[in-house]
Amino acid sequence: MSGHHRLVVTGAELDGETVSLTALDGTITAIGPDVADHTPADETLDAGGGMLCPSLVNGHTHAAMTLFRGHGDDLPLMRWLQEAIWPVEARLEEEDVYWGTRLACLEMIRSGTTGFWDMYWQPVGTARAVEDAGLRAVIGPPLFDPPDKPLEDRNRELEERLDQLASFGGNIATAVAPHAIYTVGTASLEYAVGLASERGLPIHIHLSETEGEVLDCVEAHGMRPAAYLDSLGMLTPSTTLAHGVWLDREELELIADRGATVTTNPVANMKLAVGGSFPYPEARRAGVSMALGTDGAGSNNSLDLMADLKTFALVQRHSAVDAEVIPIGEAWAIATGRRSELIGNLGRPGVPASDPLTVGAPADFLVLDPEAPELSLGNPTSNLVYAASGSAVKDTVINGRVLMRDRQIEGQEEVLIRARERAARLGLT
Amino acid sequence: MSGHHRLVVTGAELDGETVSLTALDGTITAIGPDVADHTPADETLDAGGGMLCPSLVNGHTHAAMTLFRGHGDDLPLMRWLQEAIWPVEARLEEEDVYWGTRLACLEMIRSGTTGFWDMYWQPVGTARAVEDAGLRAVIGPPLFDPPDKPLEDRNRELEERLDQLASFGGNIATAVAPHAIYTVGTASLEYAVGLASERGLPIHIHLSETEGEVLDCVEAHGMRPAAYLDSLGMLTPSTTLAHGVWLDREELELIADRGATVTTNPVANMKLAVGGSFPYPEARRAGVSMALGTDGAGSNNSLDLMADLKTFALVQRHSAVDAEVIPIGEAWAIATGRRSELIGNLGRPGVPASDPLTVGAPADFLVLDPEAPELSLGNPTSNLVYAASGSAVKDTVINGRVLMRDRQIEGQEEVLIRARERAARLGLT
Repeated sequence: MSGHHRLVVTGAELDGETVSLTALDGTITAIGPDVADHTPADETLDAGGGMLCPSLVNGHTHAAMTLFRGHGDDLPLMRWLQEAIWPVEARLEEEDVYWGTRLACLEMIRSGTTGFWDMYWQPVGTARAVEDAGLRAVIGPPLFDPPDKPLEDRNRELEERLDQLASFGGNIATAVAPHAIYTVGTASLEYAVGLASERGLPIHIHLSETEGEVLDCVEAHGMRPAAYLDSLGMLTPSTTLAHGVWLDREELELIADRGATVTTNPVANMKLAVGGSFPYPEARRAGVSMALGTDGAGSNNSLDLMADLKTFALVQRHSAVDAEVIPIGEAWAIATGRRSELIGNLGRPGVPASDPLTVGAPADFLVLDPEAPELSLGNPTSNLVYAASGSAVKDTVINGRVLMRDRQIEGQEEVLIRARERAARLGLT
Repeated sequence: MSGHHRLVVTGAELDGETVSLTALDGTITAIGPDVADHTPADETLDAGGGMLCPSLVNGHTHAAMTLFRGHGDDLPLMRWLQEAIWPVEARLEEEDVYWGTRLACLEMIRSGTTGFWDMYWQPVGTARAVEDAGLRAVIGPPLFDPPDKPLEDRNRELEERLDQLASFGGNIATAVAPHAIYTVGTASLEYAVGLASERGLPIHIHLSETEGEVLDCVEAHGMRPAAYLDSLGMLTPSTTLAHGVWLDREELELIADRGATVTTNPVANMKLAVGGSFPYPEARRAGVSMALGTDGAGSNNSLDLMADLKTFALVQRHSAVDAEVIPIGEAWAIATGRRSELIGNLGRPGVPASDPLTVGAPADFLVLDPEAPELSLGNPTSNLVYAASGSAVKDTVINGRVLMRDRQIEGQEEVLIRARERAARLGLT
């Protein structure tokens, strides 16, 4: 068994039974009440009666932006970007991104998120941090149209970044990430489509976050944003569109037809006061693949996706003036990455999109705190959606490794110290 | 010193300094870096470098409704009440309310709430639970127009309840609590005004939660709800109005003029899909006293007011399409009971409305977790409003007693067991 890693979890609750679970090299090999197995374990976890629970997948974030938390809090989107964020981002070093991402990883592990889709500067810093923290991520080096250099240079640098990212282990996947249609011109979007196709990579782009973006697109291209992307060949099952607040019915049907995903970020949208919310009922009717994201901690300001799941359900009920608009099971499936194969698989097309907590599925899961009062009564899924925050997670397992045990995470103290130092360097604290 | 209780807190952080705090019999007697005091303490708390923080006041809840969590989750307000809630409430016993409230108290202590305004059946059960748990509450036995008995009998029973509640200790205050204008007729509302005035008690009523309630009021009384209450003499500085979603500018000016409080419950309003949100910008312009509540766990489904504080700020930014509509400091002041003297004083008119964390103020406060990653960078108040949930609280002190120490609360296990038993008895699990 040398070189292999075997995890045994005992004393967990699943569907009202006490079960054990074993995983080998990151894949669940057995789960049930009668899992008797005498092979020695490399790692054990006593669940202490806590419920086994699928983990969450954050479909859109800028992890290192933990460093920017609270910076320019009360500004609307464009002023927030232009006045508070971009000037500081211009001074970012890879070590800033590394420690900001380590802090983000801590927060995600603590709140039950085991994988995420990221788009940020110095992506090698992100990848190093994700690898060291033990999470999974799909990392997209952002592609902007630079004001100050030829596109060829930008493209060469981007491709070098992608090559560097490709050298990381299996928990790190890569995406082509054109920032948005208002920051990337048609030629560069076409380049992104070609690059993604050539390298077999997914595309991760912001779309339709503000109404202004839609109006500008119609004026410039005579089409709404989704139609414009489709005209460039960008709407495929390998593309995820972050936000989608202002998508109309026709765009949703087009997106569904092409198999692309929309990742909604309700908290960031409300905080930046974009004025609308993702049209979930229409998207569901159209059959759009969907995921949930926090966006960066700079505009949220939390990375607790379980908390955001509640806000997602609430804002949908509120907007539709309909308490029945989003069934609890659907909300939970969206947050756990099961309403988008692309998002749920975290850029690992080889991995079967198995149901979580079954034999053959990746050993990414949670044990909930059996003592959490908010989980003590009622329907478990309802409690996860409406009553709990991420603090109800007791243990977090990713790829068959116990990353949080009884809410303790190795190395936490150093991460807090270094992240504070990097924020101070940037003048952010 | 016999009969007295003296608390000494050491190693806390306040405004960047390491401070100690002492409290005698529930009142802060000293706070600062140089608090040297050699009187023996009855109780000590090592804050471990955690920040001292004012505690939160929940302005509107039905604490025992923890038993109903998740019951009828996807129903709108009126169907939720009529189909899911009222039939079970008809079978409630005092012990149900006692253990449901004990569960609520656990959740509030864990999330930093030290006092709350309650309105629920079997209020003696509530009072016993609050006293045993060590919180503060203002308890209002609900006043409905009964379909099946003379008003005189109802009144006699209510007054007996108020007498029973008056026999509890100083942490329990009492309110007259007519349920709402759609469940209580004019004669009973007038009776409530008289009773409150005669006994020197505050009034706690639901108002303007749905648009239907407003339309019905205009049809029945030729006035909108706030004007109707004012015509009965109910709008005074001792009255708190829960919800206030559909108040118009004229009503807000009237409420401000009379000095009454509006307690907004944004999560419950969104969950029950009432279709609007409390008009905070107009209320603030009019100078209305304000507080924040969770409403009951049946319609929230959490009692974590720190989490709801974020939703409050988010829904206001979203509704106003204005990221600057609610300054962070204002949001925090509302959640800590400092934008309504009535709510903040928890029905103790003798207690000076001092700033929290000053000498002479009640010793109700929190120590935040110095290891919480979401608090590690940036502006502390912004982090409390936008980044933290109640799980960032490490220790909770109420009335000079340490009720939660390093997230452990005495008796928690029994509360979970008994609450489960009572819910099972009611057919709720």
